[in-house]
Amino acid sequence: MNRAVVLLSGGLDSATTLAIARDNRFECYALSFDYGQRHRIELKAAKRLAEALGAREHCVAAIDLRIFGGSALTADLDVPKNQLGGGIPITYVPARNTIFLSYALAWAEVLRAADIFIGVNAIDYSGYPDCRPEFLAAFERLAAVATKSGVEGGAVKVHAPLIRMSKADIVREAVRLGVDLSLTHSCYDPRPDGTACGECDSCLLRRKGFADAGLPDPIRYAK
Amino acid sequence: MNRAVVLLSGGLDSATTLAIARDNRFECYALSFDYGQRHRIELKAAKRLAEALGAREHCVAAIDLRIFGGSALTADLDVPKNQLGGGIPITYVPARNTIFLSYALAWAEVLRAADIFIGVNAIDYSGYPDCRPEFLAAFERLAAVATKSGVEGGAVKVHAPLIRMSKADIVREAVRLGVDLSLTHSCYDPRPDGTACGECDSCLLRRKGFADAGLPDPIRYAK
Repeated sequence: MNRAVVLLSGGLDSATTLAIARDNRFECYALSFDYGQRHRIELKAAKRLAEALGAREHCVAAIDLRIFGGSALTADLDVPKNQLGGGIPITYVPARNTIFLSYALAWAEVLRAADIFIGVNAIDYSGYPDCRPEFLAAFERLAAVATKSGVEGGAVKVHAPLIRMSKADIVREAVRLGVDLSLTHSCYDPRPDGTACGECDSCLLRRKGFADAGLPDPIRYAK
Repeated sequence: MNRAVVLLSGGLDSATTLAIARDNRFECYALSFDYGQRHRIELKAAKRLAEALGAREHCVAAIDLRIFGGSALTADLDVPKNQLGGGIPITYVPARNTIFLSYALAWAEVLRAADIFIGVNAIDYSGYPDCRPEFLAAFERLAAVATKSGVEGGAVKVHAPLIRMSKADIVREAVRLGVDLSLTHSCYDPRPDGTACGECDSCLLRRKGFADAGLPDPIRYAK
């Protein structure tokens, strides 16, 4: 089996991505980040999902993105509620996916894996620049010249199987692949007990996805 | 004054790069990494250099590259001695400069800085793939599509002023700019008291640089 590094946040999209990688017969190495996010509870979800979806290993890299500030996800700023759409929101974390993919590239090189999976989506998304196809293409070109394996001819492919899917499509694909969606966590601003707020960008997109797919969302919402 | 993020390891090259950025009238934000390197003593050198060279701020990002293993700089492998030349050595840390530049990009975006300085060198260097001009060019292209400021038209430039300089040129430039080279630390495998081993790749390159420049190296070597 070929190995793949799969970025796994613990949300709906990354869980579906992991299921797709497995369905494509990759031996999956799931990678999560403890980056000072206020919704750290997603790491528990990631751990359960990695097990449930048969990842060979699950690595949580502790990195501190709070040192730079600048985002409602890591700094002491309010997460906007019921404000979907209209530019890049303050939940944007500067260069987050660039940093995440850099770590994935490092691990892929050590594992001699030529494949990285990331659950970004350019349709029903929050407008983050590092979720777009042109970003992923630029990262692939960087990877080809950045590493020992790249220099020796082993190009790394960045797979983003959800990039053109609507949130409803993602929900349907997750269900088709047997992902236990009750294990996923999407909310940016959960209550202390982990209950989703129901009103942040991430909750709004998720709820719309389930509604459009005509399927029930198995998680609880505060509102 | 325009702001610049300057990667500062604490070695000869990055210290000279910081001095060049300052000489080019940038307000400098020095960025170092505590990444589990066996030569963590370089962080003390970085702190002293940031102060001595007038950096506005010095940030040390704690990131753990040991989780992936794969390098003599972070894993429990012997650092090769007296073996300069011949392919990419095991002191190579997978994707290290990709990760370092990703952090620099994040901080640059928060600071609204359009300039990043990195002290890589493609002449007298250890053969790491992520020290080459094509790597830096690919990172610049990535940065243009990766960030909010990039999307809004603020391209980030990656400066590598040492890229075509010999080690002797770098020593001369450091002296010309008044860098106190006794503060710099280059050794990959220092003694507990910080004394340089004198035999690792990094020591060999440094010693050759001073010798070729006809200048005395102010640091002590064990051998």
